[in-house]
Amino acid sequence: MALRVGVIGGGQLARMMIAPAVELGLELRVLAEADGMSAALAATAVGDYRDLDVVRDFAQGVDVITFDHEHVPQDVLRALVADGIAVHPGPDALQFAQDKLVMRAKLADLGVPQPDWAAVRTRAELQEFLDAHHGAGVVKTPRGGYDGKGVRVVRAAAEADDWLDALVDGDALLVEELVPFVRELAQQVARRVSGEIVAYPVVETVQRDGVCAEVIAPAPAASDRLVRVAEDIGRSIAEGLQVTGMLAVELFETDDDRILVNELAMRPHNSGHWSQDGAVTGQFEQHLRAVADLPLGTTTPRAAWSVMVNILGGPAEGTMGERFGAAMAEHPSAKIHTYGKDPRPGRKVGHVNVSGDDLDDAVYVARAAAVHFD
Amino acid sequence: MALRVGVIGGGQLARMMIAPAVELGLELRVLAEADGMSAALAATAVGDYRDLDVVRDFAQGVDVITFDHEHVPQDVLRALVADGIAVHPGPDALQFAQDKLVMRAKLADLGVPQPDWAAVRTRAELQEFLDAHHGAGVVKTPRGGYDGKGVRVVRAAAEADDWLDALVDGDALLVEELVPFVRELAQQVARRVSGEIVAYPVVETVQRDGVCAEVIAPAPAASDRLVRVAEDIGRSIAEGLQVTGMLAVELFETDDDRILVNELAMRPHNSGHWSQDGAVTGQFEQHLRAVADLPLGTTTPRAAWSVMVNILGGPAEGTMGERFGAAMAEHPSAKIHTYGKDPRPGRKVGHVNVSGDDLDDAVYVARAAAVHFD
Repeated sequence: MALRVGVIGGGQLARMMIAPAVELGLELRVLAEADGMSAALAATAVGDYRDLDVVRDFAQGVDVITFDHEHVPQDVLRALVADGIAVHPGPDALQFAQDKLVMRAKLADLGVPQPDWAAVRTRAELQEFLDAHHGAGVVKTPRGGYDGKGVRVVRAAAEADDWLDALVDGDALLVEELVPFVRELAQQVARRVSGEIVAYPVVETVQRDGVCAEVIAPAPAASDRLVRVAEDIGRSIAEGLQVTGMLAVELFETDDDRILVNELAMRPHNSGHWSQDGAVTGQFEQHLRAVADLPLGTTTPRAAWSVMVNILGGPAEGTMGERFGAAMAEHPSAKIHTYGKDPRPGRKVGHVNVSGDDLDDAVYVARAAAVHFD
Repeated sequence: MALRVGVIGGGQLARMMIAPAVELGLELRVLAEADGMSAALAATAVGDYRDLDVVRDFAQGVDVITFDHEHVPQDVLRALVADGIAVHPGPDALQFAQDKLVMRAKLADLGVPQPDWAAVRTRAELQEFLDAHHGAGVVKTPRGGYDGKGVRVVRAAAEADDWLDALVDGDALLVEELVPFVRELAQQVARRVSGEIVAYPVVETVQRDGVCAEVIAPAPAASDRLVRVAEDIGRSIAEGLQVTGMLAVELFETDDDRILVNELAMRPHNSGHWSQDGAVTGQFEQHLRAVADLPLGTTTPRAAWSVMVNILGGPAEGTMGERFGAAMAEHPSAKIHTYGKDPRPGRKVGHVNVSGDDLDDAVYVARAAAVHFD
């Protein structure tokens, strides 16, 4: 009988596991938040991932549980583990992706390079940090943020008063130095349940309004040192945090040649979508192999350059079908991936991958195909 | 709403359409012959494809009908067309893939190079053909043969007595000259509903016991002339027969430098499985684009060489899962595709694709991965 992999969450990351699951011969079962989500084809249950009874029922029908997102509460995760269910990544690892303060403290323990940071509970504590860091900082709510939400650049402590006022006993905000970065990078590694780790090449990510817009793989003009340091950081974190499945480490490259860890994600990640078409083993296949404890696949790129451009639903004229047809007609080498979502402005509804020998050409084609949807 | 593509037949070809359908945002619906078939994930109906009521019910829920095989009877196909349903390829095209005598006559009309052939109804007619062709010929039942079934090499007419005796009024057998070929090739083209045609590079196919065993893409040591002639043949047939979707043309390359058409298939074909991983647009994605009348994708190979080796279920020790794990562990660059079938000896249960710069390496890895399943 086929190994059954259960994915909690029915978004596009779960959807993009369907294709490699079919080819690998794994049975994918998805617990979706609602009907008609991106991963509806593989949805065998619909319910609230915060409800232990719902999750427990779903887990009875699978051999391993993994995730489309990192929002399943620790108490639910730990109850599954207590039931004897294989959960990958497990709660001990996921806590570091769920709480940025817990993550910062752990990375400090591991000696991984990261921005200066502090836990602050009062305006005075925050102002003290800002004063020590050129009068600026990035304040983050430790939990629940994504795509730029829960993140605010401040130049005076009062700018975070609303968040400080909302803190309940024992909670704190995270403040980090405003890093003078020259670009953002991302390092992905996969760690199999039984311990094997493979690394992807470090990539450059371009954010717009706090949301990933483009990825270039591998990162252009990356020195051997940068490639090695980024890979070492990825491997250290995967090992140190006992991550299972895909790990994405978002990095800052600074103007003084430092590589600092920005964020972590323990699942397939937007920075790795290029690998679906641009690497021998795409990140969705790799995640399935890793959590199902199958041998990992080669991460070698299939081309000199791969470029990913996100498609954000916008006010373009015509139906999605018409836009899609126009993009395909003009750019037959573009690999367009759609998420089965309604195209609301600013919402990620798909992405385009283009690979080739010439970076400028690949960037041009990927952007030109994606622009049909803006 | 997503365009709905209905596939008649639940085998591995339908299964391998699932992955690209998800990424393209097409809704795939499969009419399977039974529960638990390869394409079960996308099966929305189970029933007999020869039963017009079953097929008609299924067709009501989709925007276009296509196929996993060529066995749907002409009267069923023509009834669907009369109902106003888009059927691709349509019955006028499919008849040439369903009846080898009809195909031979049509290719003769088109002036496409093919072996000498004749329709024979008696031992005398067959013997006359053999006498005119060095005493040998290949006798074929015009309908229903596949993977070497319905094909027999004879050196005396009496060797086909059983088939001749079984002929009913008006039927005939096909006899073809025994072509002195040096190797077998396959040319694939895709033709979109609205007429656009794209060609894949001609590939070399290696048959064992009448079943495709290996494919090398592109065909090694292919002269410019061979590449051009093969592509011209593919385009001529797609155009001349008004094929919609993928067309595979099996070819003989003779010792006197001729290229002769052996067989046709109007669907994704074993000779094109390499393109899933080895071409910018795989044949399953291309077939969906073509039958849904979407713009066709680039057929450019992603690597210098791609090799496909079929996995035939055999007496190897261990469960499929254990064999799979061993193959993946030893060959992390091999792309192993499984069909969700029980591994009976001689049954195609999957295939391995390997791409790379060095043909010998790719052949070695693909064979070494596949041998775990023999």
